[in-house]
This record gives sequence, structure tokens and C-alpha cells, in this order.
Amino acid sequence: MKKATLASLAAELKVSRQTISNVINFPDRVRAETRARVEAAIQRSGYRPSAAARALRNQRAMAIGVRLSPPRNGISGSFMDAFLREIVTAADARGYRVVVFPATSRSDEVERLLELRGSLAIDGGVLTDTWTDDDRPERLGEAGVPFVSFGRPWGSADHGAWVDVDGRAGAAAAARFLRDAGHERIGFLGWSDGSPVGADRRAGWADELGLTDDDATALTVEGPDTAEAGASGMARLIDGGATAAVCASDSLALGAETLRRERGLAGPAVVGFDDTAVARSMDLTSVRQPVEEVARTALDLLLERLADPGVTLQGRLVEPVLEVRGQSMSGTRSRASV
Amino acid sequence: MKKATLASLAAELKVSRQTISNVINFPDRVRAETRARVEAAIQRSGYRPSAAARALRNQRAMAIGVRLSPPRNGISGSFMDAFLREIVTAADARGYRVVVFPATSRSDEVERLLELRGSLAIDGGVLTDTWTDDDRPERLGEAGVPFVSFGRPWGSADHGAWVDVDGRAGAAAAARFLRDAGHERIGFLGWSDGSPVGADRRAGWADELGLTDDDATALTVEGPDTAEAGASGMARLIDGGATAAVCASDSLALGAETLRRERGLAGPAVVGFDDTAVARSMDLTSVRQPVEEVARTALDLLLERLADPGVTLQGRLVEPVLEVRGQSMSGTRSRASV
Repeated sequence: MKKATLASLAAELKVSRQTISNVINFPDRVRAETRARVEAAIQRSGYRPSAAARALRNQRAMAIGVRLSPPRNGISGSFMDAFLREIVTAADARGYRVVVFPATSRSDEVERLLELRGSLAIDGGVLTDTWTDDDRPERLGEAGVPFVSFGRPWGSADHGAWVDVDGRAGAAAAARFLRDAGHERIGFLGWSDGSPVGADRRAGWADELGLTDDDATALTVEGPDTAEAGASGMARLIDGGATAAVCASDSLALGAETLRRERGLAGPAVVGFDDTAVARSMDLTSVRQPVEEVARTALDLLLERLADPGVTLQGRLVEPVLEVRGQSMSGTRSRASV
Repeated sequence: MKKATLASLAAELKVSRQTISNVINFPDRVRAETRARVEAAIQRSGYRPSAAARALRNQRAMAIGVRLSPPRNGISGSFMDAFLREIVTAADARGYRVVVFPATSRSDEVERLLELRGSLAIDGGVLTDTWTDDDRPERLGEAGVPFVSFGRPWGSADHGAWVDVDGRAGAAAAARFLRDAGHERIGFLGWSDGSPVGADRRAGWADELGLTDDDATALTVEGPDTAEAGASGMARLIDGGATAAVCASDSLALGAETLRRERGLAGPAVVGFDDTAVARSMDLTSVRQPVEEVARTALDLLLERLADPGVTLQGRLVEPVLEVRGQSMSGTRSRASV
């Protein structure tokens, strides 16, 4: 298949390349008759101006950069893979390509975004996994690289270019669900890595149950984000008199639920987070983050910023949904909005 | 931060933009003194020729396209996410960017690759999920779009631009492991979608155990790739006198193993495929596909083709590894090469 180029089209039509370029970019500058002839030939030939040529002309790459999120355990990690999937889908629907790149650290991620933007390979970037004192927004802002983040600023300067899920409300709904199921002592299985997301979820659980600080401390077990830690944590909670647990992730919930079944304790007694395939497989209630809505909102914010670098943006908090399972013998599933 | 451009550098140095371009692309054409002065200024300014300009000049995007694999259940699907991760890492190490795009079908995927290549946004593509009578390689070959696929041609014309994992050998190793563990009737839990990958794994299991066609049929249960299907399939196998099962995926293995535990049957009796986080969490033996090696090999093949469109390539078959678990009380893990 011979590809039509500006040169081959110009030769075929016996017009200058500038004329063809004008038909595409400034049709008013070309006589109606010539324009019609060129447009028909373009249509027929399948000629498309190259992305590189358009990028140079418009100084727009029509592409966004997303760091490949660091590998983590495949259960909780599947949520970030789902987010990437939705970002790619949302960007495509808006005519943007997605360039995915690796990075060894948050600082390296910023360097890579500056480089990609500097070489006109992307117009802006999507950050994930915001953290306390995260300096990526500030560095990108100073360098004039448009960005949006999935995750709040958590105490860093708020550029308004973020969307996040209300994990506190999700954990509160999880605690409410277990209390309504008859549990009186409900523990929390969380992460020991100082994650602000984990702290937010824990706060939702403690608030909902009206726990004092001492109570909350006694009813919390934190560790790595693994099923093993979930199982040993659940054992400690049970030894301490708890009968149920809100978990910061489905990885922890998988371990906790496996232990519950081994001990023959009545369910439902475990609620997970992220509504992964594991939760569905184990018939576990889990807090679902509406990942499609999050991705769409993130793209909208980024495109607003791209269209107008000076625009004032406001961060958006999205409500999670408690996916209730294991409630009836018939296996029917129901949803409860948080 | 003001970004240096070709124009700003030319103005600062009082040379033409062509001179700077020559220093970068054809240093021999420039007088040594001027060259040294321009090179020092480029160094100092942090000026980088834009990716778009380089792509136009060299007709090379220095980028490859990968379709976002269709969503499937998050357990088996996590393997394709891991493959994407490794492709991005391998491409980055070779100076290539990765453009990820969605597609609604194999045919749409080809259209998208043609479009991306036609507009110089990518130089070539990586295919996954090859299928019987898959026409993507032929269509891309005819259009002159360099590609490599993760997956054999499975009966389609062999362009040699593929890498695959020897699933037959992996399933044989799984069957051997269960036979060595003392099982005499070992079933196979597979997929009902006609997947050539599934048929290949089943053949490895049947060959290793020397099953007749009738035996193999009696000991096979096929269904969707879910834990539910794994549990009901395992129940059927047990009712038919089997005591163990080789599973085509960890999704099926999760269901089969859960049922084994509920029935209180002795383990190890279930082997999964892909060595996902679920297998690790459930202490299940599973066949691991060496995804990093697969991705690296795929990139090497694609880059060979990009460097020389006429090169004759040969497909590569990679050996999987049986990750043995649940064998001892101490929880130590061992590996067996297939």
C-alpha cells in the first residue's frame, strides 16, 4: 500500500504543497474550486497530516503522559491497572493518546514528565499515589507542565487539579454495614507504611463507630498489604475480642476472610476495599472506587488546564459505593450508595 | 523557566538556525570553532530538539503502540497488565516510548495501528492474544507496519515475529507434580471459549499422563474463566473419581482450591497457571510465565524488524517455571524448572 504524502498529493494535483497545507489549515485562503479538488483528493487518498507535523505546527502533542505505577501485590495493584485502562479510554474518546513511562521514584517521574513535555511528546501528565509532602505538583507547576492527580494534595499546596475518592465515607459505610449485621466489636486492618489514604480510611471507621483514641488503637492492626498480614491481623483482632474487621484493601480482606472461614466464625464479618476480582470471587463485601468516573473527571480537569493554563481548578471528591455480597443464600447482590 | 528553542539559541549565538541544526545532525559540515561554540551553548541551555522535529526529520517516532488488552476478570487479567508493565520497561531501556490505545476488536486494533503509524506517532506495534486464523499479522505485514506478537500464529501465516510461552510443557510439569504427589486420577479445568492457548495446555496435561482421548474427555471440565467455574468444575471432577486438577488459570485454581478446602481433601491437589498474586496468597503451586523475558524478547524482535524491514525473523518459545508451594509446614518455597 503506497501511502499518500503531501508531496505525492501535490504532484498528482499539480498544486504546491503550501496550497494543500492551506486547504487543511486555512481553507479560506484557497479558491473554492481548488479547495474542492484538493479536499476530494485528500479524501480519496487517505492522506493524513502526520502527528509530528501537526505537533510542530500547533505546539501540541495531543498526548498525555502517565507513569506506570510501581508494581505492588497483584490484588490491590489491579486497581491502578484499572485506572490506567480508564484513563486510556477517556483520553482516546477526547482525541488524546497516552504515553506510558516507567520511573524509579516520584522525583524521577517529574524529570520524565519535564523531558516528555520539553520534547513535545506530551502536553501534560496524570499523577497517581499522592503522598504527604508530595512535591510533584509544585515542581510541575513551576515548570509550567499541566497536570492532574488522582489523589488529594494531603497537606501540600492545593493546585485544584485533583480528583479523589472519599475513602473516609467508604470506610464509614463498611463499619456501618458490619454494625448493622450485629457486630459489636469491629476492628480495622490497615497499612503500616504511613499512607495518608490508609489514615483517612481508618478515620472513617473510627468516626462511624464513635471510638475513643484508646479504643481505636486497641482495635487496629497495621502491617504490609498482603493476605498473610490480613490473616494474622484478623487472628489478633479475634483474640482481642473483635468479631469483624473493616480492611483497608482486598488483599488484607482475603487473608482475614480465609481465617474467618478456617475458624468457622459466622459471616459477613469482613469488608474489603477496591472491589477487586478477589472480593467478587470470595463473595466478599467491598468498597468500590468508581474508577471510570475518577478517570473521566481527571481527564476533564487536565483538558481544562490545557485549554487555559491560567484557569482556576477545584479538586473533586467522588463517592465510593459499598458492594454488598454474601448476604443471602440465593447469591443475589445488592448495592448501597455510601 | 524559559525553555531554549532553536530560535532563541540562534539569536543568542548570532548564527542561523540551519547552523545549529547542522551541528546536531551533520557536525562535519560546520567549522570546528563554530561547532564548539554551538555545542557549549546547547549544553548550557538544556536545549533539546523536540520529539516532533526529530520524528519529522528521521521519519521515526521512537515509539511503539500497544493495545490496551480487553478487560477480563482481574485475576487472570493481571498477567496481561504485568506484560504491559514489562513492555514499557523494556522499551524505555531501549529509548522507545509506548503509546497505549484502546480497541473494540482485533480489526479495530489493526486500524488503530495503521492510523498511528500513518501519522508517525509510532514506528511499530506489539500484538497480544493471538488466536486461530488471526489476520492481524497478515494485514499489518501487507501495510508495511512492523510488529511483534506475544503469542504464536496458531495456524496463521508465520512471520517469525513472535514470542510465546510453552504452555504445553508447563501443563505437563503441573501434571507431573500432582502425579508425584500421589494422585492417580488428575483432571483438567479449562476454558470453553475455544482458546488455542487452552487447547495447548490441555494437550500437555493429557500427553504427560498418557491419557486416551476418552479418558481425557472424561477428566476435562471446561467453562468460563472464573473462580465459580473452578469450584463447580472441581466438584464434578471429584464426583467422577478425580482427586486433583491441573487448571488453565489461577482464577479456576482459586475456585478449585476453595472447594478442596471446604471438602477437607488433602493437598496439594490443585495447580494453577500464571503464578498471580492469588496463587501466592492461597499458597498454591502455579505455572509461572517468565513475563520479563517474554517482553524483552518481543522488544528485541521488533527492534530487529525496525532496523531492517526485510530481516527474516524466527519465533521464540520461552520455557515456563513451576512455582511449587504448600509442600511443607515451614512454608519454604521451591522452584522447579519445567
